[in-house]
Amino acid sequence: MADSTEPNRIAKTPLPPYYAVIFTSSRTEGDRGYAGMAERMVRLASQQPGFLGVETARSTEGLGITVSYWRNEESIAAWKAQVDHQVAQETGRRLWYSDYHVRVARVEREYGKGPAIL
Amino acid sequence: MADSTEPNRIAKTPLPPYYAVIFTSSRTEGDRGYAGMAERMVRLASQQPGFLGVETARSTEGLGITVSYWRNEESIAAWKAQVDHQVAQETGRRLWYSDYHVRVARVEREYGKGPAIL
Repeated sequence: MADSTEPNRIAKTPLPPYYAVIFTSSRTEGDRGYAGMAERMVRLASQQPGFLGVETARSTEGLGITVSYWRNEESIAAWKAQVDHQVAQETGRRLWYSDYHVRVARVEREYGKGPAIL
Repeated sequence: MADSTEPNRIAKTPLPPYYAVIFTSSRTEGDRGYAGMAERMVRLASQQPGFLGVETARSTEGLGITVSYWRNEESIAAWKAQVDHQVAQETGRRLWYSDYHVRVARVEREYGKGPAIL
């Protein structure tokens, strides 16, 4: 599962349907513990039931996009309620993000650069 | 519609349901016309029927994530078939991207940092 927990690579996900959580954010100034938390949250998320993968990028202009992939809505709800993640969410609202938006979406189809596997 | 065509900001989208096209990519070396094309494609996409917004970021490690939002599957299909976009897709496969993955997903719910509007 090395690919799924390496957020700087294209995630290897199973065939749809599955779910995507699109987290878009603007950071506040300064790190204030952000980078370490972000790394811990990726590691922790990857241990949750139903986790399928994660991809993350932040532009030099400051917009961050993290897409995490999940088996179903239940696994998303469980991850949102996870205790350490709750602390990170609360600190995010208070300290790290000037703004953010979360979209929960059902992946219905997909394709890549290479020939389709199926 | 300044927010919707400004890909370095959180997109202002309507209430779900609507669709997200999650485009994840790894770039090849060198620009080779990429930056200009990317800017033109955002401008062109924003003029298509059903376009709702776009967000983009590329990490220093090279992973790019662009999420475009659309009213429905029909508007996504029309944009995929648009002539100038077809040329960009072909050049992308040949020249700009060492790898990419496209996921089409139906946004079912969302929330932001602030209190919910509804």
